[in-house]
Amino acid sequence: MILAVCLNPAVDVTYSVAALRPGTSHRVRTVRRRPGGKGINVASVLTQQRVPARVTGLIGGAIGDDLIAGLDAAGIGHRFSPIAATSRQTVTVVSEDEATVLNEPGPIVTGAEWEAFTVLFAGLLGGTEVVTMSGSLPGGVPDDAYGRLVAFCRDAGVPVILDCEGAALAAALPAGPDIVKINEHEAAATTGVPTESVPGVVDAATALQAQGAREVVITRGADGVVAVTASGRYAAHPAGAISGNPTGAGDAFTAGLAASTARAADWPTRLRRASAWAAAAVATPTAGVLDLPVATDHETRTTVEELHQ
Amino acid sequence: MILAVCLNPAVDVTYSVAALRPGTSHRVRTVRRRPGGKGINVASVLTQQRVPARVTGLIGGAIGDDLIAGLDAAGIGHRFSPIAATSRQTVTVVSEDEATVLNEPGPIVTGAEWEAFTVLFAGLLGGTEVVTMSGSLPGGVPDDAYGRLVAFCRDAGVPVILDCEGAALAAALPAGPDIVKINEHEAAATTGVPTESVPGVVDAATALQAQGAREVVITRGADGVVAVTASGRYAAHPAGAISGNPTGAGDAFTAGLAASTARAADWPTRLRRASAWAAAAVATPTAGVLDLPVATDHETRTTVEELHQ
Repeated sequence: MILAVCLNPAVDVTYSVAALRPGTSHRVRTVRRRPGGKGINVASVLTQQRVPARVTGLIGGAIGDDLIAGLDAAGIGHRFSPIAATSRQTVTVVSEDEATVLNEPGPIVTGAEWEAFTVLFAGLLGGTEVVTMSGSLPGGVPDDAYGRLVAFCRDAGVPVILDCEGAALAAALPAGPDIVKINEHEAAATTGVPTESVPGVVDAATALQAQGAREVVITRGADGVVAVTASGRYAAHPAGAISGNPTGAGDAFTAGLAASTARAADWPTRLRRASAWAAAAVATPTAGVLDLPVATDHETRTTVEELHQ
Repeated sequence: MILAVCLNPAVDVTYSVAALRPGTSHRVRTVRRRPGGKGINVASVLTQQRVPARVTGLIGGAIGDDLIAGLDAAGIGHRFSPIAATSRQTVTVVSEDEATVLNEPGPIVTGAEWEAFTVLFAGLLGGTEVVTMSGSLPGGVPDDAYGRLVAFCRDAGVPVILDCEGAALAAALPAGPDIVKINEHEAAATTGVPTESVPGVVDAATALQAQGAREVVITRGADGVVAVTASGRYAAHPAGAISGNPTGAGDAFTAGLAASTARAADWPTRLRRASAWAAAAVATPTAGVLDLPVATDHETRTTVEELHQ
């Protein structure tokens, strides 16, 4: 069982309109509402791949109820802790030639609600093989929220894959997360190390290790992935360019990494699977959904080289 | 007790942003969610004025739950009939200089759900003094939905105030609604009679009577109101210009008309109250909320003349 942490889930609402004209009134043609947030995307991909998974986090209000209904409809397991405030929604207005996104600020979590969540979380670790922690923190939770959850995982002996940025990442690193998975821009911002080249990316990963990360995977978009691990340093090269929707590709990568980490696969195997699932996510228009033939094809054709930097 | 019919209620979501730029991503500064829809505005105004009122209609899904929670929080009584589809929300994106509105198409109601609502509605008429029916029809209900509800009211001896337009109005008129309250543009569109002048408005009202309406009130914005009634023809003149937000002013007018009709007030009294509540609605930024001092002041100063056309 993989446990995906999604502290700030959202209902993603997509409106299609002929054209968005500021200052006017629009008749929305179609409405799509689905559960969103990086951790939910991770659980969604795992569920599609028939890997046992559930998602946990903080949820509240009518938007929270809508999220739960959406997860139930999709067959995605969940154990959320309630909050009094209303969970956020994102509204994306899509017309023929553009997408306009409106991100709500999200709820404010009380101290007591956060403490209640940590009790739930600790209880869920029994039977959990890998924990993923993805995305931003809602208002009101401590900056080192992920660090505190990492500490629970270490006590329970459950490995953690952490995918976050900024203050949430900086505050979590001292707790020693097993795998930090971020993109090259976040790595550069957190470490101050330029990440334009593979040697630079390796240096940034090493700097993250100096701050507490055990192993580090840095994604580089179409240029592939660099991993600095206990068993070696690797670069994975995609099987080929995929055109499509990159939203959620990073979450599919995390899902592939979690699934293969749960099986204690070697690092080249993990990187091939994670890269293939990311490519398969780009190939579909919807975040959290893979093109399964692409996943299978890319897993055989993604190449991994060991780096000797 | 006044019963406000709101067949197609909405949650009105308002986002404030610095500026709306199509094709980009926005951090929403503040989010406001409140129950909306013309019938809900009517019940909201009546509740604020301490006139016993409740709202009924069709509601479903998480947005429906959010609506109910909002009505409960505002102390507005309600008895809705459930539907399987999700009620609509409207999103208004407000920046310093403009408002952009996104109207969801709304749910599709099944035949069985509509029949179940009519049973609920008929049961609610006991103890109801006046029924108001406002706004558009959701998909799936018959075009003559309001006509069928008017027939129930006539059987129960409860007067109806009908505020709708287009096909819904045309199909309701043969049922003989007690009072049809529409604006001059809707009156012109429904009757084909030009409504630029007071005589034209009176002619349009007479044409609506020929189609089935018993009494007709036609609102003319800042130019006041014309009423063609069983006791005479009247023009009401506003006490003065009000600057503000006209959204919901028509619903406040309907609320004032319903409250005074429930007391069997004479027509000049009804028109003064309704006009004053409309002015008091313009004076606040929020639909469904009155500026009470403005309501009191305008009720004494609105003038009503009898027309001898």
